[in-house]
Amino acid sequence: MSRQIGLEDLDDIARGAAILGAGGGGDPYLGRLLAENAIRRHGPVTLVDLDELADDDMVLPVAIMGAPTVIVEKPPAGTEFGTAVRALSASLPREATHIACLEAGGLNSMIPIATAAGCGLPLIDGDGMGRAFPELQMVLFTLDGIASTPMAMADDKGNTVVLNTIDNPWSERLARSATVDMGCAAAICLYPHTGAQARSALVPRTLSLAATLGELVRTNSQGDTATALAEHLGGQVLMKGRVSDVSRRTVAGFARGTAVLSGLEEYDGASMTLEFQNEPLVAIRAGAVVASVPDLICVLDLDSGEPITTEAMRYGFRVSVVMLPCHDRWRTPEGLELVGPGYFGYDHQYVAP
Amino acid sequence: MSRQIGLEDLDDIARGAAILGAGGGGDPYLGRLLAENAIRRHGPVTLVDLDELADDDMVLPVAIMGAPTVIVEKPPAGTEFGTAVRALSASLPREATHIACLEAGGLNSMIPIATAAGCGLPLIDGDGMGRAFPELQMVLFTLDGIASTPMAMADDKGNTVVLNTIDNPWSERLARSATVDMGCAAAICLYPHTGAQARSALVPRTLSLAATLGELVRTNSQGDTATALAEHLGGQVLMKGRVSDVSRRTVAGFARGTAVLSGLEEYDGASMTLEFQNEPLVAIRAGAVVASVPDLICVLDLDSGEPITTEAMRYGFRVSVVMLPCHDRWRTPEGLELVGPGYFGYDHQYVAP
Repeated sequence: MSRQIGLEDLDDIARGAAILGAGGGGDPYLGRLLAENAIRRHGPVTLVDLDELADDDMVLPVAIMGAPTVIVEKPPAGTEFGTAVRALSASLPREATHIACLEAGGLNSMIPIATAAGCGLPLIDGDGMGRAFPELQMVLFTLDGIASTPMAMADDKGNTVVLNTIDNPWSERLARSATVDMGCAAAICLYPHTGAQARSALVPRTLSLAATLGELVRTNSQGDTATALAEHLGGQVLMKGRVSDVSRRTVAGFARGTAVLSGLEEYDGASMTLEFQNEPLVAIRAGAVVASVPDLICVLDLDSGEPITTEAMRYGFRVSVVMLPCHDRWRTPEGLELVGPGYFGYDHQYVAP
Repeated sequence: MSRQIGLEDLDDIARGAAILGAGGGGDPYLGRLLAENAIRRHGPVTLVDLDELADDDMVLPVAIMGAPTVIVEKPPAGTEFGTAVRALSASLPREATHIACLEAGGLNSMIPIATAAGCGLPLIDGDGMGRAFPELQMVLFTLDGIASTPMAMADDKGNTVVLNTIDNPWSERLARSATVDMGCAAAICLYPHTGAQARSALVPRTLSLAATLGELVRTNSQGDTATALAEHLGGQVLMKGRVSDVSRRTVAGFARGTAVLSGLEEYDGASMTLEFQNEPLVAIRAGAVVASVPDLICVLDLDSGEPITTEAMRYGFRVSVVMLPCHDRWRTPEGLELVGPGYFGYDHQYVAP
């Protein structure tokens, strides 16, 4: 049933999306500001479920591509997303009917709200991953054989690029270079697909789930949010600790790095290493991998339960680390080939928790 | 007056174009093969003068972009130029009527012949520079305020990119990265312009001049070709010598490097350094700049007079170096700002010879 996203909903959605983004997908606070501005200007956004789509609807996912570390320092202007939608629409045979989220990441859950408001189009309650992943072929669309192109990119200066590639990894490669040129951040609109395709390739009800999780964190601020979240989503608390080291570098348009945690409370004496590429990819405790992609590894403030993005993590932060299960399709052989530990250069096998 | 380019014309044009390309623009032998194949398959190409164009004709310049060192090792497939023309045409309001040369370079004089044959369009006897330059904003179009975009790029695999940028240096930047991704070589189709614009922005009769110069080298093979060329074009022989050192590296999609020559004959005891970025930019003799961009610095085989591209230059080659004057518009303040020594990081002022 379609409903409206208004100003009063943004706080919970942004917080919940940051959890689903597992520390990636960019700072949700920036995204909330963009969505707030757009809704103030254009009015609330209509949110529709997948089963409300007609088979031949034309859905355009939008996102920001780049290094979250850079995006925090140079926030999007806001206009580039509409530019990307228009640039893609110009190379499509039919008018766009809906906007969608490419990923469930922090900023990348809010940008589609702002874009839908600006374009006057309804937004689909769903996304292409069920979490955030760092590379653009890492979506369920790829598993369904849906092409990423035609794909449009736009920067805040007014430059646009339209790609038509032979496969989705080629889009990642060409778009990553253009993103670096554009200042390590670009608005992207890609994977144009039909309503029928959306029902197979989108993870349903992402924004509703984000709102629920955000509310849970907000109302549970005195309790153990990590445990409550893990229970709600069938996940597991992996660690409570203090950040004792963070190394971070911007490489080839990604924020890569490592964080080391020293155990607190029942984890006193233990330590954990998180390795990330925009999102944490692997959690290692006592030399053993205790969680890895494609499952979500979320870092939360130990006291407030607020999600912490990888680019915001700092020495001294007291955090809890929670594993949340990924979408089932990521655990298939095809899913693991696309986003499993092997793709990211790790030699361990993925073990479902 | 329009005329035909057939198989029998290609040899002279390729040789002459290599001279006008001043060692850049890619290996003319490869270009001749592409043009030969296309003419064998599609028939001769109609060559038209600028004064035959209607004001509202639609002209598409084509070229290969990349590092000549790489292009020699991985020659173009031939199909990518037609792909680029079609990708650009799809974003233009009117049908293309003519193909043009972007530069007078070796390979880049021959590719438009092959493309015109393949597309069944006439080719304009002219080009956008009167020589070869390494970056794509370095054309007379830029001096005339003509935009490089919409611009299409294509590789041999089937990937295409269409750019729309805020200025021509942004096209260079985005296209250079895409070229590197595409394997350091890409087919480009850009600066779409009208017949009226062509008359102002193209250097006339480039291909006819190439044919004349090629014939001069061919028929003058026993005489002093360097001196004959210099006289024909109002240039100057700068050096005769043996290549005693070449250093060359592929950087950011360019072939950059230095060649050192040890004097022969009347230059015995002298030495000369040539610095190049795809094309030789500066010639230095006894510590003094004796020629520099935007003038052409051509390297010819000392005995046969055959032009030598920078990527073909090797230790031990006996060569002559000839300065040929650039088009007058490159010597204006605006021209020198775009392609003068300062742009390439040199601190000497350009002095017209």
